[in-house]
Amino acid sequence: MIILLNLDAGPSERAAVRAALQRQGLAIEESRLGERTAFWVEGSEVPAESLARLPGVERVVPVGSRSPLADATRVSGGRPVSVGSATFGGGQVGVIAGPCTVEDAGVLRDVARFVARAGAAALRGGVFKSRTSPHNYQGGGSSALRDLHAAAREVGLPCFTELTDPRQVAEVADWADGLQIGARQMQNFPLLIEAARTGKPVLLKRHMSADVEEWLLAVEYMLKAGNEKIILCERGLRSAERHVRYLLDIGVVPWLKQRVGLPVIVDPSHSAGDWSLVVPLARAAVAAGADGLIVEVHHRPETTRCDAQQALPFNDFARLMQDVRALAALDGRVVTGSPAREPPPLQAAAGA
Amino acid sequence: MIILLNLDAGPSERAAVRAALQRQGLAIEESRLGERTAFWVEGSEVPAESLARLPGVERVVPVGSRSPLADATRVSGGRPVSVGSATFGGGQVGVIAGPCTVEDAGVLRDVARFVARAGAAALRGGVFKSRTSPHNYQGGGSSALRDLHAAAREVGLPCFTELTDPRQVAEVADWADGLQIGARQMQNFPLLIEAARTGKPVLLKRHMSADVEEWLLAVEYMLKAGNEKIILCERGLRSAERHVRYLLDIGVVPWLKQRVGLPVIVDPSHSAGDWSLVVPLARAAVAAGADGLIVEVHHRPETTRCDAQQALPFNDFARLMQDVRALAALDGRVVTGSPAREPPPLQAAAGA
Amino acid sequence: MIILLNLDAGPSERAAVRAALQRQGLAIEESRLGERTAFWVEGSEVPAESLARLPGVERVVPVGSRSPLADATRVSGGRPVSVGSATFGGGQVGVIAGPCTVEDAGVLRDVARFVARAGAAALRGGVFKSRTSPHNYQGGGSSALRDLHAAAREVGLPCFTELTDPRQVAEVADWADGLQIGARQMQNFPLLIEAARTGKPVLLKRHMSADVEEWLLAVEYMLKAGNEKIILCERGLRSAERHVRYLLDIGVVPWLKQRVGLPVIVDPSHSAGDWSLVVPLARAAVAAGADGLIVEVHHRPETTRCDAQQALPFNDFARLMQDVRALAALDGRVVTGSPAREPPPLQAAAGA
Amino acid sequence: MIILLNLDAGPSERAAVRAALQRQGLAIEESRLGERTAFWVEGSEVPAESLARLPGVERVVPVGSRSPLADATRVSGGRPVSVGSATFGGGQVGVIAGPCTVEDAGVLRDVARFVARAGAAALRGGVFKSRTSPHNYQGGGSSALRDLHAAAREVGLPCFTELTDPRQVAEVADWADGLQIGARQMQNFPLLIEAARTGKPVLLKRHMSADVEEWLLAVEYMLKAGNEKIILCERGLRSAERHVRYLLDIGVVPWLKQRVGLPVIVDPSHSAGDWSLVVPLARAAVAAGADGLIVEVHHRPETTRCDAQQALPFNDFARLMQDVRALAALDGRVVTGSPAREPPPLQAAAGA
Repeated sequence: MIILLNLDAGPSERAAVRAALQRQGLAIEESRLGERTAFWVEGSEVPAESLARLPGVERVVPVGSRSPLADATRVSGGRPVSVGSATFGGGQVGVIAGPCTVEDAGVLRDVARFVARAGAAALRGGVFKSRTSPHNYQGGGSSALRDLHAAAREVGLPCFTELTDPRQVAEVADWADGLQIGARQMQNFPLLIEAARTGKPVLLKRHMSADVEEWLLAVEYMLKAGNEKIILCERGLRSAERHVRYLLDIGVVPWLKQRVGLPVIVDPSHSAGDWSLVVPLARAAVAAGADGLIVEVHHRPETTRCDAQQALPFNDFARLMQDVRALAALDGRVVTGSPAREPPPLQAAAGA
Repeated sequence: MIILLNLDAGPSERAAVRAALQRQGLAIEESRLGERTAFWVEGSEVPAESLARLPGVERVVPVGSRSPLADATRVSGGRPVSVGSATFGGGQVGVIAGPCTVEDAGVLRDVARFVARAGAAALRGGVFKSRTSPHNYQGGGSSALRDLHAAAREVGLPCFTELTDPRQVAEVADWADGLQIGARQMQNFPLLIEAARTGKPVLLKRHMSADVEEWLLAVEYMLKAGNEKIILCERGLRSAERHVRYLLDIGVVPWLKQRVGLPVIVDPSHSAGDWSLVVPLARAAVAAGADGLIVEVHHRPETTRCDAQQALPFNDFARLMQDVRALAALDGRVVTGSPAREPPPLQAAAGA
Repeated sequence: MIILLNLDAGPSERAAVRAALQRQGLAIEESRLGERTAFWVEGSEVPAESLARLPGVERVVPVGSRSPLADATRVSGGRPVSVGSATFGGGQVGVIAGPCTVEDAGVLRDVARFVARAGAAALRGGVFKSRTSPHNYQGGGSSALRDLHAAAREVGLPCFTELTDPRQVAEVADWADGLQIGARQMQNFPLLIEAARTGKPVLLKRHMSADVEEWLLAVEYMLKAGNEKIILCERGLRSAERHVRYLLDIGVVPWLKQRVGLPVIVDPSHSAGDWSLVVPLARAAVAAGADGLIVEVHHRPETTRCDAQQALPFNDFARLMQDVRALAALDGRVVTGSPAREPPPLQAAAGA
Repeated sequence: MIILLNLDAGPSERAAVRAALQRQGLAIEESRLGERTAFWVEGSEVPAESLARLPGVERVVPVGSRSPLADATRVSGGRPVSVGSATFGGGQVGVIAGPCTVEDAGVLRDVARFVARAGAAALRGGVFKSRTSPHNYQGGGSSALRDLHAAAREVGLPCFTELTDPRQVAEVADWADGLQIGARQMQNFPLLIEAARTGKPVLLKRHMSADVEEWLLAVEYMLKAGNEKIILCERGLRSAERHVRYLLDIGVVPWLKQRVGLPVIVDPSHSAGDWSLVVPLARAAVAAGADGLIVEVHHRPETTRCDAQQALPFNDFARLMQDVRALAALDGRVVTGSPAREPPPLQAAAGA
């Protein structure tokens, strides 16, 4: 960190800055920049704001990263994350697919079978929902959690589901293979710590208004709790635009890949908020280097109670998987979990 | 809700929409708008997205509010909230003041004495912090909570502190007079529900990227849990700007006052992120009709471990209280808790 | 400017940075910060990006302002701007009022008479409109410009109108007392330069997505063209919110007042986009220190072709002027142009 | 448009709405929606705000597009735009490349030769710059315009350059093959109209805070002026994020392709603001369906006076062109202008 004094700062100001830093036990070096005094301080958690309040301080310039544990994941080829038979990262592209919410066990099985045959790496489905309104459907809870587990096991896929309360973690960890932290809970730190402590893979969505530093610091909470099996998921940012629900930050994919070794996937469904844009966004994500996707798929979206507008019909999902394979192959990557399965027959056209 | 069909929609599309609505048990009325068919449906929680997926549907237009419980607070003069001797709303303006964080019991007592004499309505102080980084100071926890209680009692003020975990609620409710939900936890619904169930007054900050509907739906969760003692607090929105930390949405104050009966206060400290802007923002808030303020005050900000840049020095706080009194008086309002106290002597100038 | 090299930078990297700076004729000083080399360069227009591309450069940190001419306006008490009998700044608060657009000479006269009697400092009215759609009404042009001039002269007020094309400047400067640059043209630099060269007072609105540096650099273009009679006008920022049309950046008022000597006014009408929020926003602006307001006023908004939703009815404007006087008086300020006039009789209630 | 009255509206309110609509010469139909009265009005330019001010009106709901001319471009296979030998759209993908600014004729020729051999469809280069600061380099003007023309002719490519003033249009149209409107001038309507009237192809960048409707309405101005040769260019949106300069709205590409027939290209350079992210963003754009790219290329960015950080080195550009060809081929598209040229030899590694 650089602490730059202003031109008028004299011996007493210099002494005060020096004393404040020493009080915190920080090693400092005094220097000159042009006509000014500057101090150099090592350490990323210096209380910069306090220093900026000292008389004579013109500017405090942080240098270096605030997330050393996330930075460390980059060494030696990164940290691909395996969940059951699927691997995210390290040249493997995984697609997590399934309904928004587990509403009906039979419907879930139909979706699970289709996405598994089409090449999905894992099954998704919400059971403890975090709905904006208390008057909306709040999810199927514990019994839906068991349904999700059963459907995933039947088709041989691992399953992911979302957590919303630290008191749910033990139960969810019993039945799900991967734990999902929704965007709105990205800074629910007690929940992150509990989820991390299970040792299970955790998919951490970025909050729709979090910057990359805040996101990596949320990761840092889980790394500090001892869990490195973290999948980062970009799902779009809140913006003034209305043609998409959230603005997908496609640039964050390569930005993160340059800086951390954790897999980065993209959720085109919540970003678009409109199924007709899901395939192009998903293609863009893979072309930009994403290690995977999480996609909402449903064959009868008009019957669902949640997020119907963004659910991808079966045939579109099957075509998306073909596109993902082709795009991954351009970079010498493979789609995880897919080679062993035959492509599903396309359905007869069904409206949506 | 209006469901507008497109010009090409024929009998089968009309029948499908009708059937989908009936399946959900909704009363519908069919009508014509120009050349088109339209359906009118009562009820605010219609699954609009599912309907929009039906063939022939051009547009689904929600009409009316999604937060009926919040709307109901507006009748019969609103719902002023009393906390100890202080009242927020109903013509009374309350100022909650104190340090960002309870770090030292002696320092806290000094701040408490000063803000009480200057006319504050309540003491604030963080003990369970929700810090962006796990490497930053996480707060003094249970013992700091007791310090806060003691300092508040000594000066005869009620106290507010923040909650971050549903498992903390019982303990905090034992020692604090008002519970505070921080912006980042605005959609931590399990926490909201637990806090509401204590029956204590709850100060709910708006998330820095939440729109007003999302905010009122978070309120709706607490109203549904049976607690009407809710104080809304605007603290600024995330934006591209850097001259303030968060962009204070001053217009939301009158907008809310027109629509709900709950008190609305403003946090100029977190919005500005810079103490030199706190007083003008606070004045603007009261002039726009806010029922109060929550302000960070510290006489030695350069020694603190959190948010030093925005802490208001003692003398500036004393002058702010004078301004608040004058502004409130212009509208025939009074500052709650203040008349009985004599103004504190100004301190000798001390740097910041 | 500080150019910080990374830890690995050796003699050849240092030499390359030094050479690049010397090529640009910049005076540099080499220094050490901790284990690193740093260069200090004077001058605000160093091509920082080019330097950042040099091998071994970790970070380029600009220090100091990019707008020296704007900074210079702050000395010796600032630069109040007088337009006819009205003065903005220097303890005087001016309110510019009138219809969005000059549509009918008779209606304009009615509005002009009312706002003059209520204490407005100047009359506003659009004649060359910058409409988002080519299919919308584009303004009354030259004849409306003459109508505006006539109405203003009749009531003894100066008038302001907007420019959209450098080829209009001469004509508008013949008939208007103050030139207005709309938000969307804030970075239409040829227009700014032509407007500045007339020597007339220029009201420069901030673009709805411009940061403060971009705004001050637009000012800098006009200062460089030799015109110091510049009134800055904040009118709200584009955001994701829908309860107001643009989010008023109330904090920018004190921020600017601390840094530049030019008057700063606020446009609550375009920010709110809803007349019922105009008065509270206007009050907030004056309480935060604004040197004036620009407000759209119309007694029959339901008959207008532009921005009807935000037009303030006559009685509300008269009450707003009373509030402005009271708020200005709290700070020892006066409302410019108002003392000589008697308050207008309130109208019988008329719907809106 | 639907005008929905509130439940309390009686005969006099209905009559007033009816009268207001008739005064504007609009055909209306009265209907019932549930218990309420609704009016249906045809026409996209109804003064909705005025109607919303009438007593008894609860809500005015626009239905349908505001940009009928842009909508009409979609019929019969769209409107590919040809500029010299290059075509954008209709299955052809074109890449416009060149330096940010024409600073030196020799350097420009080197860049032109390289990008032409690598397969670029057109040469770009700024001569009349629209710089944020008046103290920054303002471009080479008329002589640089002639240099650009000469360099493009020498390598057999058409050239694009930016306009900033309606008074420049005739000169630029004499020397450039395609006219470029920069993001900041997207709503400089006099400039748009003059540019359109030349009949030359116009590349219209989206403003960094314009929504899609505003962008299409700017297009509408040019279509109304009689020019259909319009290329839309997305270059990123202003946001709170700092890891990219502007947030690329990748979803707008498919959204536009579904709605208008004009070519849509992407500028990854200005979005990223960092050359290391340009290639992934460019790949994402083509994978999402973009009809082309505009990319800043320079072999010695550290010597330039503008936007050095985002300039792509030669070898990276050559590899990008290979990626673009492979991605276009996945969809059965071709890269315009490229087949006839041999790939350029890669340069020896040169630092950046």
